[in-house]
Amino acid sequence: MTRFHRANAKSFSDANIIVMGVPDESRSHATRKGTSTAPDTIRAASDESEFFVRDGKLIPTVPMRGTLEGKRIFDAGNVQRNAVYEQARKIVEAGKTPVTLGGDHSLTTDILKAAGSGRKLSLLYFDAHPDFVSSARNYYGSVLTDSADYVDYKKSMLVGTRAAEPEEIENAKKAGLAMVTPIDITDLGVHKVAEMIREKVAGSRVYISVDLDCVDPAFAPGVSVPSPGGITVADLLYLLTSTISSCDVIGFDIVELSPDYDADGRTANLAARILTECIACLKKSPS
Amino acid sequence: MTRFHRANAKSFSDANIIVMGVPDESRSHATRKGTSTAPDTIRAASDESEFFVRDGKLIPTVPMRGTLEGKRIFDAGNVQRNAVYEQARKIVEAGKTPVTLGGDHSLTTDILKAAGSGRKLSLLYFDAHPDFVSSARNYYGSVLTDSADYVDYKKSMLVGTRAAEPEEIENAKKAGLAMVTPIDITDLGVHKVAEMIREKVAGSRVYISVDLDCVDPAFAPGVSVPSPGGITVADLLYLLTSTISSCDVIGFDIVELSPDYDADGRTANLAARILTECIACLKKSPS
Amino acid sequence: MTRFHRANAKSFSDANIIVMGVPDESRSHATRKGTSTAPDTIRAASDESEFFVRDGKLIPTVPMRGTLEGKRIFDAGNVQRNAVYEQARKIVEAGKTPVTLGGDHSLTTDILKAAGSGRKLSLLYFDAHPDFVSSARNYYGSVLTDSADYVDYKKSMLVGTRAAEPEEIENAKKAGLAMVTPIDITDLGVHKVAEMIREKVAGSRVYISVDLDCVDPAFAPGVSVPSPGGITVADLLYLLTSTISSCDVIGFDIVELSPDYDADGRTANLAARILTECIACLKKSPS
Amino acid sequence: MTRFHRANAKSFSDANIIVMGVPDESRSHATRKGTSTAPDTIRAASDESEFFVRDGKLIPTVPMRGTLEGKRIFDAGNVQRNAVYEQARKIVEAGKTPVTLGGDHSLTTDILKAAGSGRKLSLLYFDAHPDFVSSARNYYGSVLTDSADYVDYKKSMLVGTRAAEPEEIENAKKAGLAMVTPIDITDLGVHKVAEMIREKVAGSRVYISVDLDCVDPAFAPGVSVPSPGGITVADLLYLLTSTISSCDVIGFDIVELSPDYDADGRTANLAARILTECIACLKKSPS
Amino acid sequence: MTRFHRANAKSFSDANIIVMGVPDESRSHATRKGTSTAPDTIRAASDESEFFVRDGKLIPTVPMRGTLEGKRIFDAGNVQRNAVYEQARKIVEAGKTPVTLGGDHSLTTDILKAAGSGRKLSLLYFDAHPDFVSSARNYYGSVLTDSADYVDYKKSMLVGTRAAEPEEIENAKKAGLAMVTPIDITDLGVHKVAEMIREKVAGSRVYISVDLDCVDPAFAPGVSVPSPGGITVADLLYLLTSTISSCDVIGFDIVELSPDYDADGRTANLAARILTECIACLKKSPS
Amino acid sequence: MTRFHRANAKSFSDANIIVMGVPDESRSHATRKGTSTAPDTIRAASDESEFFVRDGKLIPTVPMRGTLEGKRIFDAGNVQRNAVYEQARKIVEAGKTPVTLGGDHSLTTDILKAAGSGRKLSLLYFDAHPDFVSSARNYYGSVLTDSADYVDYKKSMLVGTRAAEPEEIENAKKAGLAMVTPIDITDLGVHKVAEMIREKVAGSRVYISVDLDCVDPAFAPGVSVPSPGGITVADLLYLLTSTISSCDVIGFDIVELSPDYDADGRTANLAARILTECIACLKKSPS
Ligand SMILES: [Mn+2]
Ligand SMILES: [Mn+2]
Ligand SMILES: [Mn+2]
Ligand SMILES: [Mn+2]
Ligand SMILES: [Mn+2]
Ligand SMILES: [Mn+2]
Ligand SMILES: [Mn+2]
Ligand SMILES: [Mn+2]
Ligand SMILES: [Mn+2]
Ligand SMILES: [Mn+2]
Ligand SMILES: [Mn+2]
Ligand SMILES: [Mn+2]
Repeated sequence: MTRFHRANAKSFSDANIIVMGVPDESRSHATRKGTSTAPDTIRAASDESEFFVRDGKLIPTVPMRGTLEGKRIFDAGNVQRNAVYEQARKIVEAGKTPVTLGGDHSLTTDILKAAGSGRKLSLLYFDAHPDFVSSARNYYGSVLTDSADYVDYKKSMLVGTRAAEPEEIENAKKAGLAMVTPIDITDLGVHKVAEMIREKVAGSRVYISVDLDCVDPAFAPGVSVPSPGGITVADLLYLLTSTISSCDVIGFDIVELSPDYDADGRTANLAARILTECIACLKKSPS
Repeated sequence: MTRFHRANAKSFSDANIIVMGVPDESRSHATRKGTSTAPDTIRAASDESEFFVRDGKLIPTVPMRGTLEGKRIFDAGNVQRNAVYEQARKIVEAGKTPVTLGGDHSLTTDILKAAGSGRKLSLLYFDAHPDFVSSARNYYGSVLTDSADYVDYKKSMLVGTRAAEPEEIENAKKAGLAMVTPIDITDLGVHKVAEMIREKVAGSRVYISVDLDCVDPAFAPGVSVPSPGGITVADLLYLLTSTISSCDVIGFDIVELSPDYDADGRTANLAARILTECIACLKKSPS
Repeated sequence: MTRFHRANAKSFSDANIIVMGVPDESRSHATRKGTSTAPDTIRAASDESEFFVRDGKLIPTVPMRGTLEGKRIFDAGNVQRNAVYEQARKIVEAGKTPVTLGGDHSLTTDILKAAGSGRKLSLLYFDAHPDFVSSARNYYGSVLTDSADYVDYKKSMLVGTRAAEPEEIENAKKAGLAMVTPIDITDLGVHKVAEMIREKVAGSRVYISVDLDCVDPAFAPGVSVPSPGGITVADLLYLLTSTISSCDVIGFDIVELSPDYDADGRTANLAARILTECIACLKKSPS
Repeated sequence: MTRFHRANAKSFSDANIIVMGVPDESRSHATRKGTSTAPDTIRAASDESEFFVRDGKLIPTVPMRGTLEGKRIFDAGNVQRNAVYEQARKIVEAGKTPVTLGGDHSLTTDILKAAGSGRKLSLLYFDAHPDFVSSARNYYGSVLTDSADYVDYKKSMLVGTRAAEPEEIENAKKAGLAMVTPIDITDLGVHKVAEMIREKVAGSRVYISVDLDCVDPAFAPGVSVPSPGGITVADLLYLLTSTISSCDVIGFDIVELSPDYDADGRTANLAARILTECIACLKKSPS
Repeated sequence: MTRFHRANAKSFSDANIIVMGVPDESRSHATRKGTSTAPDTIRAASDESEFFVRDGKLIPTVPMRGTLEGKRIFDAGNVQRNAVYEQARKIVEAGKTPVTLGGDHSLTTDILKAAGSGRKLSLLYFDAHPDFVSSARNYYGSVLTDSADYVDYKKSMLVGTRAAEPEEIENAKKAGLAMVTPIDITDLGVHKVAEMIREKVAGSRVYISVDLDCVDPAFAPGVSVPSPGGITVADLLYLLTSTISSCDVIGFDIVELSPDYDADGRTANLAARILTECIACLKKSPS
Repeated sequence: MTRFHRANAKSFSDANIIVMGVPDESRSHATRKGTSTAPDTIRAASDESEFFVRDGKLIPTVPMRGTLEGKRIFDAGNVQRNAVYEQARKIVEAGKTPVTLGGDHSLTTDILKAAGSGRKLSLLYFDAHPDFVSSARNYYGSVLTDSADYVDYKKSMLVGTRAAEPEEIENAKKAGLAMVTPIDITDLGVHKVAEMIREKVAGSRVYISVDLDCVDPAFAPGVSVPSPGGITVADLLYLLTSTISSCDVIGFDIVELSPDYDADGRTANLAARILTECIACLKKSPS
């Protein structure tokens, strides 16, 4: 099995951060296939692009912000699609932080159900798409609809949105769910957007979902449903690290990598980098 | 008795926001006297500068951000210096928000003691001075020292600081208390500073204390201990309203107005304006 | 008679810019009196603060942006309050640009009526107050209401607003009239606000009215109805000069100076400076 | 024939916006060929990347700013290179807005000739190159020279320029034509640049030409003459949408897509996105 | 004699920074008199506004940036106007840094002559006025003209300029001397201006002259020739401290305080604060 | 031999800027090979992407900032790896500016040794990696360690760093070497970073080394050791041109291009563009 080389804990019980993969794309409608191979591709990309080998020693690179010191990370391997909820519940109930690698975006619904523990969460959803379709259900395009019982829409935000269907816009408006497009981010600047995010989620437990298609295809060509006009990697990393450093983030996922359409591992390496930078900014244990 | 005309509640029990004055300067060392007359001066300034009279009707102006609708404000009048703690405790225990008009800055210690209810608070301290002296105690220059049991220094911030004694700098460093000078605010920009504040106090209950000397003497000549090089009123109002709108603010005070040194009511009017804008951004009831 | 020393044209017919004073405060309700002495005070302030005398020669200072070269300015002196409309109509029909010094703000209504020539204008209204009262009429607080026939509200903007009555807010909302407070200007930054202004007035003929109370009392203590929390002079000058340089501005006025409450001529000198900088950015002839 | 799926009008007369393609590269000197296939490639890209299919229904995505509601768009198909002027004249005379898909950049000259209707236009030219060669004529590198009779250079601007010949720089200087490089945009920030554009074109009718090589090759690899150091897609979309929303834009074109050099449709999808976002910000009918 | 309380060195030879006063206004043409009393007023203001007294001990405040540790400051008292050059030469030849308190601005000419040691200096001139008159000489309005032999105009800059005579503008243009107005500073932002300053003086020895009239009269009412529309104190302090921290600054002066026109010591306190913050950012010994 | 077409000098002695290539990758540990072919690839890319051919004439494009006029450039061809120090010394001793095209990054050590002429230099190191390994030596990963005798770390800066080993972070900390990550650049903005650079190197002679992996792989896929999360080309070009225009830059290099992994010449064209823009901003002769 491919292993996440940043994982430094021997066992589930020894860790405070649990990484798992969901090698499944059964609830995707995309014409581009292959996201089921993503979890292992990201692990391998981390191995390759975030470590140097010298004199037979494996040397890790250091994250830009935050730290990996004191973080005990366990890679729980891959789980079946229908076991996602149970596994996430186990992680959350053990007081640990779930970090999930998709797979298609539908898995987020199951994590949210497990992570909320009965209380609604704030959701930060970095995605070109709102995934708020209601005319179809239980697939990668209806995550927000399917998660209605677990998410406090008024304390949540869509970031990087730029390819929404009319019914999604209407659903977001009705739900009071805020949306920030890439043009908005250019207009407002990252500090203002970071401020808006914090204001929005203030006082809540926060879950972050990163659909890699939120960034521009120039930076992330290997995704299931690419959309032009995306945000830059620098803006994404700033928003993620500053939010995780200062808000009560209880878990996150990275989804929709489609390795077959990647250019020279660029998107996979980016996924691995997001994974590391986000873990480095997490608190040691969730609240 | 001068009354705060924004006060719209008939009784203490009917209100969720309680305004009180502390007409006392016994713990000030300033050569400029007169801050004991400030509470009533601020009430009168609000009456004069925030209301228009037309056809015998008193017409209030509307705050720039937030709203006064749904806020039930009671003016509990003035209290003796030695009754501050008791009165504040009564307000907090009744689940109401204390808003206090000084008087010298020492009163903040008593409010913090009452407001924390046993748990340490985040403190945002807008002041030209750190008020963190430890070689003297129980006066307007040792508020931070005297409040050690009620404040989580690491989740607090001094804003607008520019006239600190060496021992205050040292005390702040030891305590891990962050400090942002007016030059820093110019350097970083208000959005970044607002972001830093929110990051600092994330997850905590927050108390805000506004020493009017934080702004430049051009805007606030009527204070006990003026210091050149202060922040602008626009920056202050932005930082206050954006913080109160998004953080869990449980009370605030406005202190150190010295009416005898004012120019044409400029500082008193400003105090009244800060009072209104802050109340307008408060949540309806404290958490 | 006090003369505006920048006036370099011999006669009305020789000029393309006509300055006139309106020494009248009969439609003011302010408790602070004296704005009827303002036109001559501004002329004298220009003389004193914008010219140097050396070896018996009067040497003018040069504006920061734009130029006075090619501008032919005639000072038509003071006019009676009830002659304002006629005088303004004469200026506009002769293809010249009216520049008016108040006096109370009510004069703007008469200028707008004359300047529009039957077509509605865009109005940029720099003022702490919206002056959009409708429960009283024909005074300095109802300029926007009284000018309904001459102003296209949807292409106009209130700038620096911070002391509005509830009915004014409602009237603005109904009319689709945009409003930018001083906190908004700090939040958005001047470039974004300048952009919003230009977007708003695009394609229209624009009239600008500057109530000196739009800036903070620190910069302009000598006004009829001061209000704390105003914009800075630097922001005002940037917004005025950049707008006049790029939009189709057909006239402007400067009103509400109250010399009796001034501090050492600070507000009068500022009025003179605004007058010069705005004239310097005007086109040679109105469109 | 490939059809632009956003086209919702049944006939030319029924529409206010007319899209046409110019599948011609006869006046290009580029070594990279293929721009004659671009119009249909962009139509297909729009179909594929801006629509979702679900349950047999075609569902359009919603633009980020502006709206498509009330826009009646007719796709007039492709026209021969020598019919461009006539077709554009027909569109303009019918009071409709021409939107043209190149083809090589030379077509812009014919549109400008038709669109001006005898009065010179403001031209915003987003291009890595000034296309202001005068030592050769009537090709994709001499658009500005060839359009001298139709363009008011002093009210026009080159944006994103970074690969100019010496004679082009000289021609621009002589003509008083402003130029903003990608380094300038980074230096000035997008709000300032948007402000400069509006200032430049104030009061004029504006035509916008988008050579896709204005953005960096990372975002648009599939162009005829790529040049490193381009602007970001986010900056381009901000500048286009904010300008179209607020200025009197009477038409635009998108040119120089070279599909053979594209990477996985990235540039074609971007072209389609620019097309949609620009149409959404157009006024309903040209002035 | 009034003494600068920050002065901690016993003797001239013991110090690396020498403060001197020039109580002379004989070369001023201002109608406002009194700048000859400024040096002692600034010393007294520093004593009063920058020190606290507690339990009989004098406690200094700490500068915002830089440090006073390791700085050995000697107050050489006041010198006659005609001894300025000699005294400055003595300081410079001893390898020490001259810090001078005016007095009228003409003294700067003598310091520049002494400080250059035969090589031309970069001059940063913070002033509402260019002081570049050439039709009169040897007075406070011709400093730049009189210093032609000591200043490299092309590597110098006027900052805060807003009240220039036509001949001064012409002289500056001819000399290649850059000028940044307060509107420019608002337009460009402080970081860009700081960058431009550093670029301008790169590689040169720099002298800084601060005419207190560079800031707005709201912040500095007590100056000889006030001019509306000035920069803010925050911008001034940022530009001074960032420049001194990073460039090769070999001396500075603070001039034109007119105590008789001050409001409650505001300008004098500001002068003292500028003095301290600038000294704190100086290198220990000049290069 | 491939020639750099910008080279306009006939001989070494005739030139003030000397370009040389180092076609060597013997001290690289990268798994991606091919950087030894980079010097000629960059020359060819410049020829192709920075020149137009028309009517048999070769027409150069003009740089965005700075100028090539008066620059006399000689292309000294390629040198063996072990001759780099000698060749660089010859250039420097002749008072000329060395511009070097790698090859692996280790060559920088030899240039620094030659260029310092015995005095330590300021080094600006644009690189995803610190290249400050000390557990191995004399390779592309230990440039900073190997150059300890030639570089004043405290006056140097790493820019764009994001893939550092723990020992590199430690070495940088110990040495007092500043580091700015891509997230920092997004956070601080380019003007602040440019200011920090100038502050850091003030008064020193500066050498700049550009490892192409500093920019994001979207812009520069063709490098030996790509790392996600890089800076944008626009930010790089702004920082390079503004620094070279204002600091005492005595030479620079561009390294680590790996043509085999490039996409359609994108990285090579970028290298050529960096080369031209940097030369255009150089002073005519080094100090
Ligand atoms: Mn998704
Ligand atoms: Mn998506
Ligand atoms: Mn204080
Ligand atoms: Mn205090
Ligand atoms: Mn008014
Ligand atoms: Mn008003
Ligand atoms: Mn073109
Ligand atoms: Mn082009
Ligand atoms: Mn002066
Ligand atoms: Mn002056
Ligand atoms: Mn590298
Ligand atoms: Mn390297």
